[in-house]
Amino acid sequence: MRSHLCGVLRSEHIDQTVTLCGWVDRRRDHGGVIFLDVRDRAGIVQVVFDPDTVEAFALADRVRSEYVLKITGRVRARTDATINPNMATGQIEVLGKELVILNQAETPPFQLDEHTSVSEEVRLHYRYMDLRRTEMQQKLVLRSKITSAVRASLEDQGFLDIETPILTRATPEGARDYLVPSRTHPGQFFALPQSPQLFKQLLMVSGFDRYYQIAKCFRDEDLRADRQPEFTQIDIEASFIDESDIMGITETMIRELFSSVLNVDLGDFPRMTYADAMERFGSDKPDLRIPYELVSVDDLMQQVDFKVFRAPADDPEGRVAALKIDGGAQLSRKAIDDYTDFVGIYGAKGLAWVKVNQLAEGVSGLQSPILKFMPDEIVMSLMERIDAKDGDIVFFGAGKRQMVEESMGALRIKVGHDMGAVAARWAPLWVVDFPMFEKAGDGSWTALHHPFTSPSCTPEELEANPGQALSRAYDMVLNGTELGGGSIRIHDQAMQRAVFRVLGIEAEEAEEKFGFLLQALKFGAPPHGGLAFGLDRLVMLMTGAQSIRDVIAFPKTQSAACVMTDAPGTVDAKALRELNIRLREQKAQSAE
Amino acid sequence: MRSHLCGVLRSEHIDQTVTLCGWVDRRRDHGGVIFLDVRDRAGIVQVVFDPDTVEAFALADRVRSEYVLKITGRVRARTDATINPNMATGQIEVLGKELVILNQAETPPFQLDEHTSVSEEVRLHYRYMDLRRTEMQQKLVLRSKITSAVRASLEDQGFLDIETPILTRATPEGARDYLVPSRTHPGQFFALPQSPQLFKQLLMVSGFDRYYQIAKCFRDEDLRADRQPEFTQIDIEASFIDESDIMGITETMIRELFSSVLNVDLGDFPRMTYADAMERFGSDKPDLRIPYELVSVDDLMQQVDFKVFRAPADDPEGRVAALKIDGGAQLSRKAIDDYTDFVGIYGAKGLAWVKVNQLAEGVSGLQSPILKFMPDEIVMSLMERIDAKDGDIVFFGAGKRQMVEESMGALRIKVGHDMGAVAARWAPLWVVDFPMFEKAGDGSWTALHHPFTSPSCTPEELEANPGQALSRAYDMVLNGTELGGGSIRIHDQAMQRAVFRVLGIEAEEAEEKFGFLLQALKFGAPPHGGLAFGLDRLVMLMTGAQSIRDVIAFPKTQSAACVMTDAPGTVDAKALRELNIRLREQKAQSAE
Repeated sequence: MRSHLCGVLRSEHIDQTVTLCGWVDRRRDHGGVIFLDVRDRAGIVQVVFDPDTVEAFALADRVRSEYVLKITGRVRARTDATINPNMATGQIEVLGKELVILNQAETPPFQLDEHTSVSEEVRLHYRYMDLRRTEMQQKLVLRSKITSAVRASLEDQGFLDIETPILTRATPEGARDYLVPSRTHPGQFFALPQSPQLFKQLLMVSGFDRYYQIAKCFRDEDLRADRQPEFTQIDIEASFIDESDIMGITETMIRELFSSVLNVDLGDFPRMTYADAMERFGSDKPDLRIPYELVSVDDLMQQVDFKVFRAPADDPEGRVAALKIDGGAQLSRKAIDDYTDFVGIYGAKGLAWVKVNQLAEGVSGLQSPILKFMPDEIVMSLMERIDAKDGDIVFFGAGKRQMVEESMGALRIKVGHDMGAVAARWAPLWVVDFPMFEKAGDGSWTALHHPFTSPSCTPEELEANPGQALSRAYDMVLNGTELGGGSIRIHDQAMQRAVFRVLGIEAEEAEEKFGFLLQALKFGAPPHGGLAFGLDRLVMLMTGAQSIRDVIAFPKTQSAACVMTDAPGTVDAKALRELNIRLREQKAQSAE
Repeated sequence: MRSHLCGVLRSEHIDQTVTLCGWVDRRRDHGGVIFLDVRDRAGIVQVVFDPDTVEAFALADRVRSEYVLKITGRVRARTDATINPNMATGQIEVLGKELVILNQAETPPFQLDEHTSVSEEVRLHYRYMDLRRTEMQQKLVLRSKITSAVRASLEDQGFLDIETPILTRATPEGARDYLVPSRTHPGQFFALPQSPQLFKQLLMVSGFDRYYQIAKCFRDEDLRADRQPEFTQIDIEASFIDESDIMGITETMIRELFSSVLNVDLGDFPRMTYADAMERFGSDKPDLRIPYELVSVDDLMQQVDFKVFRAPADDPEGRVAALKIDGGAQLSRKAIDDYTDFVGIYGAKGLAWVKVNQLAEGVSGLQSPILKFMPDEIVMSLMERIDAKDGDIVFFGAGKRQMVEESMGALRIKVGHDMGAVAARWAPLWVVDFPMFEKAGDGSWTALHHPFTSPSCTPEELEANPGQALSRAYDMVLNGTELGGGSIRIHDQAMQRAVFRVLGIEAEEAEEKFGFLLQALKFGAPPHGGLAFGLDRLVMLMTGAQSIRDVIAFPKTQSAACVMTDAPGTVDAKALRELNIRLREQKAQSAE
């Protein structure tokens, strides 16, 4: 039906007769001539109809925004005065000869170039209109390129694309499952998978060696800003490998992806231990674009009387950390108060600070509400420890280690953005050597990852000292976002039993929940491990999208609904009867 | 952990030291030497341990079937006497030097090479073991290659991979939906999609131009032999195209797929009208590998008194068709009786036949129970019409057209297989020009495809004579199997309303069911159309699998259950309360 896409026309096409199809992006009358901006997937081109082409001109006069047209015309150079350097096709225009109106359009619910003036609800209701915007088109085109590049890299590396079931059994992630009532097994339910975790491990037991899948996953959780009830995971598992192998494979994948799609060389990814990441950045997903680091000053604070610092410095579970902000001495009292409120969210009771000036003259040039509680030599040792210089501000966090790291880690990010100190680069890294377990409030142990994650010690060491055990897990972090994570799995029965014992999971409970996997591990499971990446988040980062909803064609709202299709919806009583369920009476009864 | 895959070792590796990982496929003692067949994804290699390697020999002596090993050794040529031409690695063996038992295995539930001796239920229960069989591995490896080739071809042709939702609203296919109760919208339900039909049309309205997706689809139907509750579709849609364009695009895709994966050139696909297919093959998915054709003989039978033929020949809705089977005169009375029973399944009251012998001598050499009812000159005209020759048998179907075509079409296939007359080639074709509507028993019209399929006539012609209207639908058929089908869709409001009127769908009902699509069509929908292929069926054909369960990693049984994970399962009362549903009391109460 067409010879070219609108958006591809350039000077090289001058004097060619072309046939285009597309939408009317804009229509203008100007000096008895009609100008149509015609849009398709590739971009926008200007088409001119003059009154000489009687029939086409009359039709062109009738068209309105978002009409669908087929146009035949000749490409010609624009005059110097009308060249538009902001348009890819701005050197040329098409002189329209023939026009067919393929379809009309009612007045659009909103003008595409005025989308910001309507609510997101309206844009989601008319999603098919919002998706016509160039920005949305580009994001989804990039998403398609990203999945294609991921597949190419993994298939090059010998991975097989294998589909796992959507109608399945509860998986071990522990979030709330979406359930599907079974008609043929009354009273029973399928669960939609939170991940293909158990299936991919079974594929390793089956000997498929290298598996991947771009898999839909589901969690019925209350949605935070950037969550969706269904999301997409790049799921990977391999056999006869160790941490280095699988990290190498997936680092290669991400590097090839950035190279082919964004023309960016990410270089080799640094590796950092969990302990180091918490110590230096107060986060297990440090944003290395921000130049600030937390510095421990507990040893110095053990020498002062100032109780706010001295007590946590003496507490084995406490920490006193300094965060130096280059050039921060300019911050106003109001700004500091705001930051004090900010760290309060994380439980910090205050935010001590020192503004550094005239350091060469000793403590006299420093401004701070807390200096009076410390001997000068301690203050100067502190300044030296954190390498302070004139114009800096130093913030302090003190208290329980976890609170200090959370609050100062978050403050580091916030101040970094506020100060414009975020480096304009991609900052990937691996975080490794996670603790195997966390202690819950009641003193019991819970798995930091899932109970199939392999520890890096023996079963005996694990049970003797669960708090010290590290896991063979690894996270890939990019610009402070966790892109993906995984682990070497347990393939040994004795180790699996030891982990269950530490977690207080009875054999019976394990059997009930994961029996088929535990059984499979008895029949010759190979050493194996893997990783899963959040595709939606990866696409967000790569497209610079502000919301996860901008990189999903048909997203759900925060209440897990689709306002376009009006899903979920009511169901007739017969369907419920067939499924052997009924609605609870105290609530909606529309379907009964 | 390894230097090579087991299955890749060849003579070129002789004298190299290799490290292998894999499973013990077989273990034999022979003359004081231990032979292990070690298996991985790439194949099997023989490893020999002799008593010289004291430590490794002792370990090798301990291993049993399905143990997981890591072996280092030297590749050497086999002696002439021990070369195994049936094994890809049969020219060589590995002399084992070092052995690590990576994992032990309990005695397997069945020996892999004796899988036919256990029930499919047992094999599905231990699916991870059954998937270790070379045949199953190869099928899933081929499936991965097939999806990869499909993606490559479509991406080359400018298609974008766009994901559509799994948690959505009922779609227009009309089978029973799987439902998912919403927790945040009490009393409401999501439906799992039977296809991405509406979403892909919306993507065309959005201007994405060329969309594809390898999409999971769901139908809660009672399962016939080759159905699964969840299945995979290659889903395609394009804008600004007509039938020829989209058929060309997808034909290219399938041709490239067969070329790259099976090294088969399918050539250009013939196109056949629905009317022609029914007339000549009694089927809308004719298997062109079978050389027989139905031949209409109504005009001849209008000249005989034999009522069984004369009545349908005179009936405008009747048909008398002959099916000549080359060399079929040898068929026994018993065989003919069996075929008579076979066509009885389709409603035929009998199966008339003529065995052809000594045709040069006229009717005297023909054997048949029905000849006596027909004048000789009609019989000879008949023989000429169907080009009969000595040694053939001719079967006759007579009655209502649909019954005759169904029964004789099925007989054609059955006899073709019984006679060994199925040509050893791939026989693809397009079937086009389907009727737009079928008449239901009550005289109402139903859509042969779905109500968004475009007719090939004007709205006025459509409403004046619905029975004559053809649709712009097309099916791709391969070896008698429908691989895929689709249509040009309606993008015009007036046409859509005309179709709804013929179908007796009230505006209100259409609005309720498909309101969002109908609304989208008002805002500038481009001409568009598409196709969907059943991936599972395509893989079955390409791998020669007998069952759809052999090309799906974790399939469901006929009762829509997974015996491996024991899904579906019961759910605790709290989960049901959160979803605002309860079980019906008269049935299972386990969760209440």
